[in-house]
Amino acid sequence: MSLKLTILGCHSATPRTFAHPTAQFLNIKNHSFLIDCGEGTQVQLRTYKVKFSKINHIFISHLHGDHFFGLVGLLSTFNLYNREQELHIYGPKGIKEIVTLQFKLSNSWTKYPLLFHELESKKSELIFEDEKITVETIPLKHRIYTNGFLFKEKNPVELHLNMAIIAKYPEIEICHYHNIKKGKDFKLETGEIIKNEFLTIPNGKPLSYAFCSDTIYDPEIVPIIKNVDLLYHESTFLKDKKVTAKTTMHSTAEEAGMIAKLAQVKMLILGHYSSRYKDILRFKQEATIEFENTHLAEEGKVFEIFPTD
Amino acid sequence: MSLKLTILGCHSATPRTFAHPTAQFLNIKNHSFLIDCGEGTQVQLRTYKVKFSKINHIFISHLHGDHFFGLVGLLSTFNLYNREQELHIYGPKGIKEIVTLQFKLSNSWTKYPLLFHELESKKSELIFEDEKITVETIPLKHRIYTNGFLFKEKNPVELHLNMAIIAKYPEIEICHYHNIKKGKDFKLETGEIIKNEFLTIPNGKPLSYAFCSDTIYDPEIVPIIKNVDLLYHESTFLKDKKVTAKTTMHSTAEEAGMIAKLAQVKMLILGHYSSRYKDILRFKQEATIEFENTHLAEEGKVFEIFPTD
Repeated sequence: MSLKLTILGCHSATPRTFAHPTAQFLNIKNHSFLIDCGEGTQVQLRTYKVKFSKINHIFISHLHGDHFFGLVGLLSTFNLYNREQELHIYGPKGIKEIVTLQFKLSNSWTKYPLLFHELESKKSELIFEDEKITVETIPLKHRIYTNGFLFKEKNPVELHLNMAIIAKYPEIEICHYHNIKKGKDFKLETGEIIKNEFLTIPNGKPLSYAFCSDTIYDPEIVPIIKNVDLLYHESTFLKDKKVTAKTTMHSTAEEAGMIAKLAQVKMLILGHYSSRYKDILRFKQEATIEFENTHLAEEGKVFEIFPTD
Repeated sequence: MSLKLTILGCHSATPRTFAHPTAQFLNIKNHSFLIDCGEGTQVQLRTYKVKFSKINHIFISHLHGDHFFGLVGLLSTFNLYNREQELHIYGPKGIKEIVTLQFKLSNSWTKYPLLFHELESKKSELIFEDEKITVETIPLKHRIYTNGFLFKEKNPVELHLNMAIIAKYPEIEICHYHNIKKGKDFKLETGEIIKNEFLTIPNGKPLSYAFCSDTIYDPEIVPIIKNVDLLYHESTFLKDKKVTAKTTMHSTAEEAGMIAKLAQVKMLILGHYSSRYKDILRFKQEATIEFENTHLAEEGKVFEIFPTD
C-alpha cells in the first residue's frame, strides 16, 4: 500500500488567486489526514477533488494565520454536510478556544464529535497511534510555538500468505495460517520443514513522512526525521535572503537541502515560498546542490511512494 | 458623483470554487467600504482588482461564518502590507474578541490602528457620519443578532457654481461665491436680480444603498429603507422552499421582491443563493413578478448609480 501526499497550498503569508497558503492532504494506511489549513483550504480540497469527508484527523503546526485560518470554515462545512463521525484536531494550546469562541458567537455547535488534542510540549511526543501507524511531533524553532509532524507506518506484524505455494500442501489447513503469518515454519507429516520465507510474501518496509513547516534551519530535528522516505521542509527564502530567513525564523532552500542530506532522507519536497520570488525553479536549483532528490511542492501535485523490500 | 457597488461573493453557506460567500465593496463619496467578509474575500478583492488598501471601514452583518470568516485573514494581510491608516470594524458584540484572540495567540498585533465598534442595539442607530454621508443599522430578524446597513449621501449643503453664466457678470467676484453656493440670488448694480437657479447647477439628489442580509421576510424594515435607490435583499430560497426559508429565518426571491415593492425602492439586487439551485435566473423570475427592476448579484458584477435632478 502506498503513502500519498496531495499539496493543496504551498505558499507563505497571504492567499492569492493562484497561490494558497499551507495545506496538505495525506493518505496513509486508510487514514485521511489534513496537515495545516490556511484560508481557502476547503475550496482547494474541492478543486483537487479530494474526498474530504473522509478526513478524520487534522494536524495544525502553529497559529500563524497562513496555517490555520481555513480551519473554522472547514469545520462549519462538515456541519452543514451533516457529518457524523468523530473529528480530531491536533494543534497548539489555544486552538480550541479560537474555534469554540466562533461557534459560541454564531450560536451553533458541531453535530459531530469534535475532539481537540492541544499540544504544549517542547519535546517530540507520540500524539496518535493505532495498529498500523504512529504520529509524533517534531518540535520546530519558529517565532511562536510550532510543531512538525512525523507520520510513520509500523513494522508489519503479520506477513502476507503466499497462497500459490501453500496450495501445494493440503496439510497446511486454515487453522495454521495464523502461525505462518507470524513468521513460523511448517513441519509436514514426513518431517520435512517448509521454511516460512517460502510460505509468505514480505510486506515491504514501512513508509514514513515528515512535515516541517515553519522553522529556522535547525539540525536538532535530524535525529527525529532520520531516514524518512519523504521530507517536506519549508524553504521560504533563497540564499539571497539568508539573513531575513534567520531573523524571521524561516529557512532557505539550501538549508532545507542540508537538513535532507544530514537526515539521509529519500526524497525532499520544498514549499512555503515567499511571494517575492516569481520563479520557484530557483528553490529547486539551490536545494539540489545539497540534496539531489529534491522536488517542488505545487498546488494539486501528488507525491506517491511505495514500499520496497 | 456615482455610488458604485462591486459584488465579491453572493452565495450562502460554504465557499465553493466559483461560489463565494457574502462580501461587497461599496464606493460612496470617496469612501471605500467593505460589507461582510466571507472566507476568501481577500482573494476576491484581488481577482476583481479592487483597490482594497483604500478600505477604511468594514461592516459585518452577523457572526455566521459565511459573513465573516475572511475578516481576520484580511486584517493580517493589511499588516503584512504595512498598512498605516486607521481601520474601523462595525459588527456584533464579540467580533473584537474573535479577532484579538487570534492575534494574541499568533503573538502579533496590527501595526495600524484597528478600531472596533461593537453593535448590540435592536433598534436602528446611526453608526457613522461625516459631512457627506451617514451609515445606519437596519435591524434584521435572523437566527442570531443581525444588522443590515443603510448608506446614505447627505443632502448637498452647497450648490455647484455655473461658471459659464457667472463669467458673463464681472461684478460677481470671488467673494460672492460663498453666498451663491448657499442658494442666494445676486443683485447687479443696475438693480437687476440674477436668480440663483441661473448661477448654480443642481447637485443631484443624494443617493442611498440598503444592504439586507440575512433576514426572514420582515415588513418592519420597510420604513427604514423606504425609497432607497438600491436595495440588496437576500433571497436564499425560491418559493418551493418557502417553509424552509421561514424555519431557517431566510427569505425567498418573491419575498425580497415584496419588500422592494413595499419600500418603493428604485432597484433591487438579489443574492445569498442556496447551492441547491443551479440556475439563478429563477430567482430573478420569481422576484420580478413582485418588483420589476430586479437584478441578480453575480461575482464581479458592478452596479453603478448616478444622481438625478
